[in-house]
Amino acid sequence: MGGDVGPDVVIPAALSALEQHDDLNVILVGDESLLKQALGMHKARAHDRLLVHHASQSVEMDELPSHALRSKKDSSMRVAINLISDGTADACVSAGNTGALMATARFVLKMLPGIDRPAICTALPSNTAHTWMLDLGANVDCDAEHLLQFAVMGSVLAKAVDNNEHPRIGLLNIGEEETKGNEQVKQAAQLLSNSHLDYRGYAEGDDIYKGNFDVIVCDGFVGNISLKTSEGVARMIAQFIREEFNRNLLTKLAALVTIPVLKNFRKRIDPRRYNGATLLGLRGIVIKSHGGADPLAFANAIKVAIVEVRESVPERISNQLEIYLQHRQAI
Amino acid sequence: MGGDVGPDVVIPAALSALEQHDDLNVILVGDESLLKQALGMHKARAHDRLLVHHASQSVEMDELPSHALRSKKDSSMRVAINLISDGTADACVSAGNTGALMATARFVLKMLPGIDRPAICTALPSNTAHTWMLDLGANVDCDAEHLLQFAVMGSVLAKAVDNNEHPRIGLLNIGEEETKGNEQVKQAAQLLSNSHLDYRGYAEGDDIYKGNFDVIVCDGFVGNISLKTSEGVARMIAQFIREEFNRNLLTKLAALVTIPVLKNFRKRIDPRRYNGATLLGLRGIVIKSHGGADPLAFANAIKVAIVEVRESVPERISNQLEIYLQHRQAI
Repeated sequence: MGGDVGPDVVIPAALSALEQHDDLNVILVGDESLLKQALGMHKARAHDRLLVHHASQSVEMDELPSHALRSKKDSSMRVAINLISDGTADACVSAGNTGALMATARFVLKMLPGIDRPAICTALPSNTAHTWMLDLGANVDCDAEHLLQFAVMGSVLAKAVDNNEHPRIGLLNIGEEETKGNEQVKQAAQLLSNSHLDYRGYAEGDDIYKGNFDVIVCDGFVGNISLKTSEGVARMIAQFIREEFNRNLLTKLAALVTIPVLKNFRKRIDPRRYNGATLLGLRGIVIKSHGGADPLAFANAIKVAIVEVRESVPERISNQLEIYLQHRQAI
Repeated sequence: MGGDVGPDVVIPAALSALEQHDDLNVILVGDESLLKQALGMHKARAHDRLLVHHASQSVEMDELPSHALRSKKDSSMRVAINLISDGTADACVSAGNTGALMATARFVLKMLPGIDRPAICTALPSNTAHTWMLDLGANVDCDAEHLLQFAVMGSVLAKAVDNNEHPRIGLLNIGEEETKGNEQVKQAAQLLSNSHLDYRGYAEGDDIYKGNFDVIVCDGFVGNISLKTSEGVARMIAQFIREEFNRNLLTKLAALVTIPVLKNFRKRIDPRRYNGATLLGLRGIVIKSHGGADPLAFANAIKVAIVEVRESVPERISNQLEIYLQHRQAI
């Protein structure tokens, strides 16, 4: 492993995940001697459910994906993904460079048949439960067909993870009326209306957090900006709350009384609970953890991987895509 | 006036604005008898600083802009904008249909020389003060030149309203690195780097709320989704806070103690304080109020108009654009 999140985060996360999931095996990929040393510092050592696999290089956070692909053939990232392709591992979880992870996964694992582009997908909290949103930044430009494929992939994730038999699909746009939006979105609306999916029309930015859609699709440029905007608003509001409670002695006393309430509140919007974005569309399961993850957040990303392995997400995407294509031929 | 916000909102807002600003004159445009009746209900009547101007039609909120333009030549919106073009009024404030307002203003007032497209701009709260953001939905597709014009217009607004001599300009993108983003954004970055503006590079979604830029530009599709996303996050968080304080007797007691803190907090993120988006780029001042505005919010939109009239915003945009063009010729 390389990047911002090192063994100090990954090892405690792995240990806690191993404790919680009896059927889990973890392979730590990175510099073997460093990893073994780090295990020792956490009073742990390798055993038959916790293996260490050596990789001599690591990908930097600011490294160009093309450079990583060309000259880091023994990076922890590349080796971890190789373990999927040779059947040793069922999934890879990484907090490394997103672009490099995506490029490497695409190169090594290849895309699922019928999927042109991979997409980054995650669940965002809503008033009722959560909303799956994709793409969050893998594709700067997308055409209507790509958005349709994202909808198929997102609906599979909602079905697999939430046991939601009929995920309601929304298309992110700047208004609910049919006349609104750019060409790409209008064409995607046509494709979605004619598909077998439960397409519910255009979603606006605030719909992500309302809970009236289960899956919202958009291109990666808009999706990434919407996600980062959300983080910005939440952080500013948290900051304002802190400042108001720190204003004077009275407000500080009020804060003391409010601690349990604020704790529950913070838990509900804790981004760590939503850590672990899926790189969908690949012939394998690759989960991207936030670069600033702590052990709790990283353990959550591992949990996402476990669920996707159990639910055979890539295979189900292939099946759904076939159903879509049959449906399209039939009309 | 028509639309969702009627005389019950606009009249008290106008009365309070007239009280606060000695140099303000208000012309209420709409059905004369209805307006006079509504004035009576607010224990007020027309006088030389509060005039009533008759208009026999009104534009519906879901009406197509082209339809409003063609067949609503005596709508309150159209008549109010006519009052600017004939020199009777200095600015128009409306809570009506945004598309129709934009189309009508553009048709009647025309664009400033050198500006191709109008843009919707508003100030959003940040950790330090606020950030001007545009375009928020007037233009679904924009090229690099449009984004440059938005930057010129936004910087004029920051200078005029905030007395900020060197507004820091950011370009909304999905990463800070030069290699990131779509073609349109990369080209706009080039134009901005070569301009006389204080261009500070790419801004990510969370930068809107951090306060490290004074003006952030983007196309109207991304801007509108980012704005609506922000509203959605803020509303969800407010809802979570309410729910946590309503959980049981103890948390309800905590809420009582916390009332002053929560009040201050709510005031800081109160969207009414940010009501009043500017339609920039026109030969005249047109302010769009939120459709769900209450008197306090609408009065704020009137205040925005007053500031822009005082600071001659359209003329200053023309001047700045000329400086930009001279600068471009010189390099």
